[in-house]
Amino acid sequence: MNRDELRAYVLAKAQAAREAAGAWATADTARKNAALRAIGEALIQDEQEILAANRRDVDQAREAGMAESRIDRLTLTPARIRAMVEGLTQVEALPDPVGEVVERWTRPNGLRIERVRVPMGVIAMIYEARPNVTVDAAALALKTGNAVVLRGGSDAVHSNGALVRAIRRGIASVGLPEDAVQWLERTERDTVDHLITARGYVDLAIPRGGASLIERVVAQATVPVIETGVGNCHVYVDRAADLEMAVRITVNAKTSRPSVCNAAETLLVHRDVMEAFLPQVGHALTARGVTLRACPRALGILRDAGLGAEPADESDWATEYLDLVMAVRVMDSLDEALAHIRRYGTKHSEAIVTEDAAAATRFLTEVDAAAVYHNASTRFTDGFEFGFGAEIGISTQKLHARGPMGLRELTSYKYVVRGSGQVRA
Amino acid sequence: MNRDELRAYVLAKAQAAREAAGAWATADTARKNAALRAIGEALIQDEQEILAANRRDVDQAREAGMAESRIDRLTLTPARIRAMVEGLTQVEALPDPVGEVVERWTRPNGLRIERVRVPMGVIAMIYEARPNVTVDAAALALKTGNAVVLRGGSDAVHSNGALVRAIRRGIASVGLPEDAVQWLERTERDTVDHLITARGYVDLAIPRGGASLIERVVAQATVPVIETGVGNCHVYVDRAADLEMAVRITVNAKTSRPSVCNAAETLLVHRDVMEAFLPQVGHALTARGVTLRACPRALGILRDAGLGAEPADESDWATEYLDLVMAVRVMDSLDEALAHIRRYGTKHSEAIVTEDAAAATRFLTEVDAAAVYHNASTRFTDGFEFGFGAEIGISTQKLHARGPMGLRELTSYKYVVRGSGQVRA
Repeated sequence: MNRDELRAYVLAKAQAAREAAGAWATADTARKNAALRAIGEALIQDEQEILAANRRDVDQAREAGMAESRIDRLTLTPARIRAMVEGLTQVEALPDPVGEVVERWTRPNGLRIERVRVPMGVIAMIYEARPNVTVDAAALALKTGNAVVLRGGSDAVHSNGALVRAIRRGIASVGLPEDAVQWLERTERDTVDHLITARGYVDLAIPRGGASLIERVVAQATVPVIETGVGNCHVYVDRAADLEMAVRITVNAKTSRPSVCNAAETLLVHRDVMEAFLPQVGHALTARGVTLRACPRALGILRDAGLGAEPADESDWATEYLDLVMAVRVMDSLDEALAHIRRYGTKHSEAIVTEDAAAATRFLTEVDAAAVYHNASTRFTDGFEFGFGAEIGISTQKLHARGPMGLRELTSYKYVVRGSGQVRA
Repeated sequence: MNRDELRAYVLAKAQAAREAAGAWATADTARKNAALRAIGEALIQDEQEILAANRRDVDQAREAGMAESRIDRLTLTPARIRAMVEGLTQVEALPDPVGEVVERWTRPNGLRIERVRVPMGVIAMIYEARPNVTVDAAALALKTGNAVVLRGGSDAVHSNGALVRAIRRGIASVGLPEDAVQWLERTERDTVDHLITARGYVDLAIPRGGASLIERVVAQATVPVIETGVGNCHVYVDRAADLEMAVRITVNAKTSRPSVCNAAETLLVHRDVMEAFLPQVGHALTARGVTLRACPRALGILRDAGLGAEPADESDWATEYLDLVMAVRVMDSLDEALAHIRRYGTKHSEAIVTEDAAAATRFLTEVDAAAVYHNASTRFTDGFEFGFGAEIGISTQKLHARGPMGLRELTSYKYVVRGSGQVRA
């Protein structure tokens, strides 16, 4: 396909989604839930086809020399398909936000105004290799009455094709329009550009993936976007910290899953506790394979304690390692920690460990981030950990949604106004 | 200035706003209100300078041949300055949304989570000739703890300069950083591009103006944008309408202020009432100077009633006239009206006139628009008419804010999480 043909192809998919969106927007909860159940049944019926399609993707990826960690994320197994079906059941059980009257009031002229939650419309999901996102994103979009255009990565094209066929068959079996789930089997890079400039068709684009994908979407999009993903998160250990707790929180924030956006990247330590704390936390982190990159004062203390550490440079403060590496910097004051986070943080998740209530309050109030923590790990920034029962991504912008996005964040609202002939003066 | 210098100039302004934003984000309501009062006093003190600056703009505009209607919007008078000051007093009286705990809950692991309303950060306002927007936008941004970068039109450059000097002096007099109000006195078109691509500095851009300005911002922006303004609004007169009410609502929706986005552009009439209704409404509209552009059936009835009307073509259904022109089309059914609005509407404001509760419910449920009306004029889509006490614009997108935007829509939220050493499993 040339560029014009590819654009026409993408717009036709988006148009089909748009046309199906109306029926989904007004479908009641029971019907939407029936569709989710039917999708689960179709996935189970199609297990062999899905696994066979996935083997093609995995074989091609291995031939192309993909790293094993990425191949693992690409690989489907019967257990992982069961986990997808279980996920559908969980989404089915969640309350349906659509139709909720968020507020209602009456004006002096008698107009009765309601603010009612409604679906967003057509959501474009742009993501990379993990095929489970195909099922997750479709389920969350459909539960909230939206249509969705899925643009997965080329590495998962056979897997996604098989999954989408099952999803659409499940939908059709309950009599709702299956065109609410559109999938771009063409994965040329231009498909992304066409999708995120489809004004009038797409109400919201959500990119999920690495920094370069997100940058590209933000730069090119003319439809509204929610940015996700980048997290240069800090743990600040205050002078009044419980140091045993601070070790536990730092180790958890750094090592429990280093590849995710809510993992901590830099440890800030108040100078009053650096001598006592850095050897403890240094041993705990290096025992778990963490490389430390430290400011001069921290470096001296760590080395005196017999710990390996490398000197940090300016770029370390700004780096999201997503790996078993942690930057360490001594702070002369809470103010200096607040300034460091203001300068280098990405407004994702930030934690203070302290027994000093006033310091905690200042940190929670002054740090500008999606989630701010007192005496807890940054790793809790997650839709499931927050109790939303679902997560479509973690927003790192302030418009519309901030932090973990669940079902409610996939809705908009409208004003329903009832009168008796009122006109404006 | 060359392009690089202009970019550096814009970014320096945005950076200054960013640095002032922290103090405003944590300022309490009393201090913010004191600043609003001080701004009002400064405007009154500077009245002569402001009027003199405005005369320069008006003289230049007249020499350049600007239309009188635009010159009227540009012109300031002592009464209009008093109205600005009155507007500041109204904003002062509004409740401050910042700091509101929107929700709070405790997780099974003991984490206590609060969702707290916070300022957006730095807001870029891009607008055209009306200098009162300078004061309005600054007041609403400051009341909600935001900093603002104002980019007004070149026609109002002297007026805006005088207004901004008064605003900043007022702020400084209460000890808050006046850098929270930045103004781009350079009005080259490129300043807009630099402002809306200032990622890391600007949290939200709001364009207010004509369709070409909004298109440009949407196409070029890499910071989040709220689209405002375009409204191709309909009044649908159902078979079960109270025709006297329908005339009143149609006349109000079309003629009370034809140049604004919530004015109706197309009248849809059910065929069962076309013979009775069209002559009535046609006389009422033409008496107020409205030109009618009608489908063949409506045209015949209007001409038989001795009314002037022109034949409509396809483009009329899609046109936002913003003028004393109205398209008229006969519908065979409610379904056809819903389809017409789905196709040509811009999701702004849509009204049905009917005594049939079932038809009203279908219309209110199925029409996808920021505001849907039963038996009331579309002209009520307005922050003051809705009771918000303020309006920064009317959003025509679904992300973040829809319809009239008041103070709350200039805020975001953050999650404040308090623990006792919790780590993630």
